[in-house]
Amino acid sequence: MTNLNNRYEYVKAFEQPDVLLPNTWIVVRIDGRGFHKLTDRYNFKKPNDRRALDLMNAAAVEVMKDLPDLCIAYGVSDEYSFVFHPSCQLFERRSAKLVTTIVSTFTAHYVYLWGTYFPDSPLEPPYLPSFDGRAVMYPATRNLRDYMSWRQVDCHINNLYNTTFWTMVQQGGMSNTDAEQELKGTVSSDKNEILFKRFGINYNNEEEIYKKGSVLYRQYQLEDIKPKSEPNPGVLAEEEGNYVQEAKTSRSQQDKLRKLRRKAQVVVDHVDIIKDEFWERRPWILSGKPGKLPTEA
Amino acid sequence: MTNLNNRYEYVKAFEQPDVLLPNTWIVVRIDGRGFHKLTDRYNFKKPNDRRALDLMNAAAVEVMKDLPDLCIAYGVSDEYSFVFHPSCQLFERRSAKLVTTIVSTFTAHYVYLWGTYFPDSPLEPPYLPSFDGRAVMYPATRNLRDYMSWRQVDCHINNLYNTTFWTMVQQGGMSNTDAEQELKGTVSSDKNEILFKRFGINYNNEEEIYKKGSVLYRQYQLEDIKPKSEPNPGVLAEEEGNYVQEAKTSRSQQDKLRKLRRKAQVVVDHVDIIKDEFWERRPWILSGKPGKLPTEA
Amino acid sequence: MTNLNNRYEYVKAFEQPDVLLPNTWIVVRIDGRGFHKLTDRYNFKKPNDRRALDLMNAAAVEVMKDLPDLCIAYGVSDEYSFVFHPSCQLFERRSAKLVTTIVSTFTAHYVYLWGTYFPDSPLEPPYLPSFDGRAVMYPATRNLRDYMSWRQVDCHINNLYNTTFWTMVQQGGMSNTDAEQELKGTVSSDKNEILFKRFGINYNNEEEIYKKGSVLYRQYQLEDIKPKSEPNPGVLAEEEGNYVQEAKTSRSQQDKLRKLRRKAQVVVDHVDIIKDEFWERRPWILSGKPGKLPTEA
Amino acid sequence: MTNLNNRYEYVKAFEQPDVLLPNTWIVVRIDGRGFHKLTDRYNFKKPNDRRALDLMNAAAVEVMKDLPDLCIAYGVSDEYSFVFHPSCQLFERRSAKLVTTIVSTFTAHYVYLWGTYFPDSPLEPPYLPSFDGRAVMYPATRNLRDYMSWRQVDCHINNLYNTTFWTMVQQGGMSNTDAEQELKGTVSSDKNEILFKRFGINYNNEEEIYKKGSVLYRQYQLEDIKPKSEPNPGVLAEEEGNYVQEAKTSRSQQDKLRKLRRKAQVVVDHVDIIKDEFWERRPWILSGKPGKLPTEA
Repeated sequence: MTNLNNRYEYVKAFEQPDVLLPNTWIVVRIDGRGFHKLTDRYNFKKPNDRRALDLMNAAAVEVMKDLPDLCIAYGVSDEYSFVFHPSCQLFERRSAKLVTTIVSTFTAHYVYLWGTYFPDSPLEPPYLPSFDGRAVMYPATRNLRDYMSWRQVDCHINNLYNTTFWTMVQQGGMSNTDAEQELKGTVSSDKNEILFKRFGINYNNEEEIYKKGSVLYRQYQLEDIKPKSEPNPGVLAEEEGNYVQEAKTSRSQQDKLRKLRRKAQVVVDHVDIIKDEFWERRPWILSGKPGKLPTEA
Repeated sequence: MTNLNNRYEYVKAFEQPDVLLPNTWIVVRIDGRGFHKLTDRYNFKKPNDRRALDLMNAAAVEVMKDLPDLCIAYGVSDEYSFVFHPSCQLFERRSAKLVTTIVSTFTAHYVYLWGTYFPDSPLEPPYLPSFDGRAVMYPATRNLRDYMSWRQVDCHINNLYNTTFWTMVQQGGMSNTDAEQELKGTVSSDKNEILFKRFGINYNNEEEIYKKGSVLYRQYQLEDIKPKSEPNPGVLAEEEGNYVQEAKTSRSQQDKLRKLRRKAQVVVDHVDIIKDEFWERRPWILSGKPGKLPTEA
Repeated sequence: MTNLNNRYEYVKAFEQPDVLLPNTWIVVRIDGRGFHKLTDRYNFKKPNDRRALDLMNAAAVEVMKDLPDLCIAYGVSDEYSFVFHPSCQLFERRSAKLVTTIVSTFTAHYVYLWGTYFPDSPLEPPYLPSFDGRAVMYPATRNLRDYMSWRQVDCHINNLYNTTFWTMVQQGGMSNTDAEQELKGTVSSDKNEILFKRFGINYNNEEEIYKKGSVLYRQYQLEDIKPKSEPNPGVLAEEEGNYVQEAKTSRSQQDKLRKLRRKAQVVVDHVDIIKDEFWERRPWILSGKPGKLPTEA
Repeated sequence: MTNLNNRYEYVKAFEQPDVLLPNTWIVVRIDGRGFHKLTDRYNFKKPNDRRALDLMNAAAVEVMKDLPDLCIAYGVSDEYSFVFHPSCQLFERRSAKLVTTIVSTFTAHYVYLWGTYFPDSPLEPPYLPSFDGRAVMYPATRNLRDYMSWRQVDCHINNLYNTTFWTMVQQGGMSNTDAEQELKGTVSSDKNEILFKRFGINYNNEEEIYKKGSVLYRQYQLEDIKPKSEPNPGVLAEEEGNYVQEAKTSRSQQDKLRKLRRKAQVVVDHVDIIKDEFWERRPWILSGKPGKLPTEA
């Protein structure tokens, strides 16, 4: 029988490698599949359903805990972006393995926790939530920062639109079509004005989770912001780009880092990640090196 | 604010295409992540836990129903292979999209149905089941058939080993190490003999689901097997390889096929898929064209 | 110093594999870079320069001789397509290696032979001819045949257009713009009529090399065409798709085949490769197995 | 006939994209194919043939002139590495196109110039020189610098070995096997000693082109080295990683840069590229921005 197996085993040669380029940031973004239909069936509240967002965040926290190699995650609506550091060697950086592990772990917790967040709307198969995902590489830290900014700007744009649209419909009694029509071509200030003048709503007072989305990271002691020195383009940052070598020489070092990261608490924040401040006070996110654990008073 | 978004939107350029080669079979194989630990924690029975296999099959059936483009699936232990036809155009054949959709849908149903199959062992986070997956292309039908045979031969080899090993341990009172030691280097006939002579077990009488694994497909009227004519290697099969063109000219045709496939029942079978008979009596699996629905008496 | 080298050697980890899928046809197509400028500088004749085509063919013959794994090649204008069989294991099927080897070998012979075909127009650097190239995989023989047909149909369409255009300009005294304008929207029969009625040219009498392009293959004894039997879609062709396995078990077998192929003469033909006849009389091209060497009378 | 073409045109769908990740350094390395045989046939001198190296460099200079997007090249023995800047958008960064263009252009000039450097050893087909090549991406400047260092360290190691080996054979009258045997396991200092004590050769006095290889770049005014400021890892270099955006907004800007680069002279240097000095005095190489053209006295 072993012979038989050998006879067929050649099919393994068709598997093609999908290792991601070393020393690049890896962003795994997952998106809800057909969530429009899902939000209808389970009566999600418009424009934002707090239970749904809390459920997304709870599932994402579990993913962060399960995979200490993740250094930050950002969620908005039914999407979530998980970020691996350039030094990450998890699963030898195989793309499909990284993406499916995150998608599956997220889905498992999302389904498992559903009843906690939607006690009155039990899941009804075949209408179960599911997610697709993909991995994208970003070579420079600037590119990663810009990716994160892109998602948060997108969050803002969509939330301002949705808040205005659903206020016009729900409080203003307009039809969906009319509201859509009126909003066509408007800019941010127009929408702010509609909200304020017609409905007395100051958009700035909306909840931060809706306006900023959710940022997940491991909590260490915040650092003070140092005055910036002049950057010298001719000088190479010492630490940059030697991850490959390090990874090879000290796998045990990687395990140590993982253990340290597991000790840190994963926090859910709703803050600006476009400006430098967030990143400068939490240097461990971009450096990939754990900070000091917060001391108890 | 739109300007801001545009400023960051360039990061989309880092997304790289992952479209699979047209006119190839696509096999998406998923595997349980760390199921060793899971089977311990939830006390799966050895060598086979019928509830666990039934749960795998139930989740796989839901995946088949959700994705009518799938033409066959094969499951054994904590792995499942899902097969798309060379003519498949689902998600423009994007690899990550196909794989993550299957992994996530499977996981969702597996977690959701857990309580039905393991009523006495509720899931305990963070120990939730999850799966990873990957897509592999097979150019020729012969390659696909050999892939399926490979998995079924593997099922046989592992099950014979596990059945013998656990019988030696559970009924023979041997330690794991001793049993492992004795089985080292044995061939099939040796294991059959151990089972029969020492424990009076005829391996052939073991349940088919354990010996053959599980085959899922859509049920149509079985066809008679025609006598084989001499193949003429010089003649090209008419239908072969024109899927790309067809796909482009008739997307509505694809939707029709999907509807037809949804009408067929997905069955779970435990039969030989190595020999020709299985395939010749069910030509719709390899042809990608729905057969005749079974008529009621 | 060895230490120094080790310190930098990690950069090899950035090399990514580019192995082409097993059991697929590989077409390497090369195209002249900026040949418009080149044809002007060296005064190529319009619409076809026989010397230039002969030079292309001579260089392609050398590529075929250098790489016995190639089973056929097709050239038209400044492009050439070289075809590797699905069973080909050359350079472990690494894409860049296959493509650059062909491009470089072709370029070397093209430059070396230039003086033979253009004795009166020596090359003047930096205006040297160069070619780019790429590899494409075709899973089914039908796809490969259709690729070859596509190129030959393209040859016909372009040659009919160019022949008509340049006859109108050169013999009819029209300006380029006027000729282009008149040909806009015309079909084949229109162009045939212009040639025949205005200039007494019967397109069918044009040289075959211009109308059909050039087909290169190894010459064995032609085979008779057998009457076609009914194809039975249920039956798998025996030989199909086992190349991977074969390749692994018998590398020496591959070397034998290479030697046999080196013995055959590479011929340049200008014939129809769209219809079945060409392929049925030369079964060795698609089978990948050398035929019988022609016997001398 | 157009219909016929359409019928086959579907085969274009099999072409798969091969665009390299934006904002990464691209190194195209080419290697002589079977140069061992070639050096025998045309009697290259051992351990180094100055004519052969000069020919390599001459061909590489032509490649640099032909492709102003290249910012540096490094050659040793029968290999050459050509480097594109992370901001490079040439051929939309398609890998095959970039690699084959360089391989073909290099080959064309190498064959064309052969007679100039080897007037007494004309090329004899089919023994023509050819090269294969591949593209590798390096995300960080540190990685690119390390790649260049790796090649130059390799050059040193090989040249010291070859110089010692061939001196032992040519001047010491040893057999190849004996020399090889004695050198096994020796370190640099051993080889230096053999050269000096037995043959009175001071390795340091060997020609720089043999010891350091050849560096090609565009010549601008050298810059003074500034004292290094403390690098601040928290601060992102302003210019880093925005190339994608720039590229999209200003294609004309790219054309301007190309013209500026064409004006600069390509020089062939034999200097240390491992230490910082080379790069700091020629900041245009890593910045991708042309420097000041040297002023004439």
